[in-house]
Amino acid sequence: MTLTVHHLHISQSERIAGLCEELGIDYELKTYKRAPLLAPPDYKALHPQETAPVIQDGDLTLAESGACTEYICHIHAQGQLFLPPRHPAYADFLYWWHWSNGTFMPTMMKSMSLRSLKLSGDSSHMIMTNSRFKRAFTALNDRLHNNEWLAGSSRWQISWLCSCSLPYGIGFPTVWMSTRMWPSIFSVLGGQRGISEGDEKV
Amino acid sequence: MTLTVHHLHISQSERIAGLCEELGIDYELKTYKRAPLLAPPDYKALHPQETAPVIQDGDLTLAESGACTEYICHIHAQGQLFLPPRHPAYADFLYWWHWSNGTFMPTMMKSMSLRSLKLSGDSSHMIMTNSRFKRAFTALNDRLHNNEWLAGSSRWQISWLCSCSLPYGIGFPTVWMSTRMWPSIFSVLGGQRGISEGDEKV
Repeated sequence: MTLTVHHLHISQSERIAGLCEELGIDYELKTYKRAPLLAPPDYKALHPQETAPVIQDGDLTLAESGACTEYICHIHAQGQLFLPPRHPAYADFLYWWHWSNGTFMPTMMKSMSLRSLKLSGDSSHMIMTNSRFKRAFTALNDRLHNNEWLAGSSRWQISWLCSCSLPYGIGFPTVWMSTRMWPSIFSVLGGQRGISEGDEKV
Repeated sequence: MTLTVHHLHISQSERIAGLCEELGIDYELKTYKRAPLLAPPDYKALHPQETAPVIQDGDLTLAESGACTEYICHIHAQGQLFLPPRHPAYADFLYWWHWSNGTFMPTMMKSMSLRSLKLSGDSSHMIMTNSRFKRAFTALNDRLHNNEWLAGSSRWQISWLCSCSLPYGIGFPTVWMSTRMWPSIFSVLGGQRGISEGDEKV
């Protein structure tokens, strides 16, 4: 029974394919191009939610990044990456695991949405969103300044985030997006994704 | 060592207090009023993220709804509500658990944000957000139509969601927010929260 990862280009499903690679899991990758902005009909037909990622495993079709990640780690990788409650870094692990989709991703998406509306920078919406955006990146940078991994000594690390959210953010031109402001994030990304000083957007 | 739940009024921390009540956990509740819209300085000082919820347990201070929920269930309630990988409803559980904060909450928050900007209903942003909003509520309604709980026979249920997200949504006037459109959601909420036909906002 082969695990199938349905990957929509430029979407959160990149994280799931990256996870399978990191865990060394045997999986089949099916890719879909956007048509032109949203998912094509054959991708939407995979799951009623019509979002990426979607995985299939035998009769199971599963959506939602967090669910797919947790399912793959526990069903196909003996619980790798997930720390048990008895682990000293358990609370740290829980925080960064849920922070990635509970705070970081919504903040990024809202920022992208408001910027596309071309709101004035001094509107209350932009001020609040920019503040949250900056706080999120500052928190991540601070965490990576003295920690190789996001949660203690586990392999849970920035790659789950940076497979999607961070490149999105980095692709958005803003005065905050600089190697000077967040050197630790760019240092880690530089090693993992080939992003260098020259890629900064100011 | 008493667990402390810091509850900011009208915020996601309502879910955490509700969770402790559901699990019958001994906890201390500290409440904070908004001042006037955002969190007051003493709440913001609890955690660098400056969001609700925040819990404290001995030397630990933890933020992020998902992390607080998972920590409380595993550290203070022997893993109650969380299904193990061997459980037949494990994938269902993972989906609805992550859907609540990965899809449902961001959809609600984005919808609220765009509505407050008073965008035209036929703008591309509103059309896309309304579509996602409707799809999310339809999915939840369909799930509850034939299931007492969200995930198989576990006690994982709508209360974690409806402690925050659903009343937010229901409080927002829209033609979709009706007992006719989503009878199963309102039926469950009616039992849990005293919401009745007369409360519908159309």
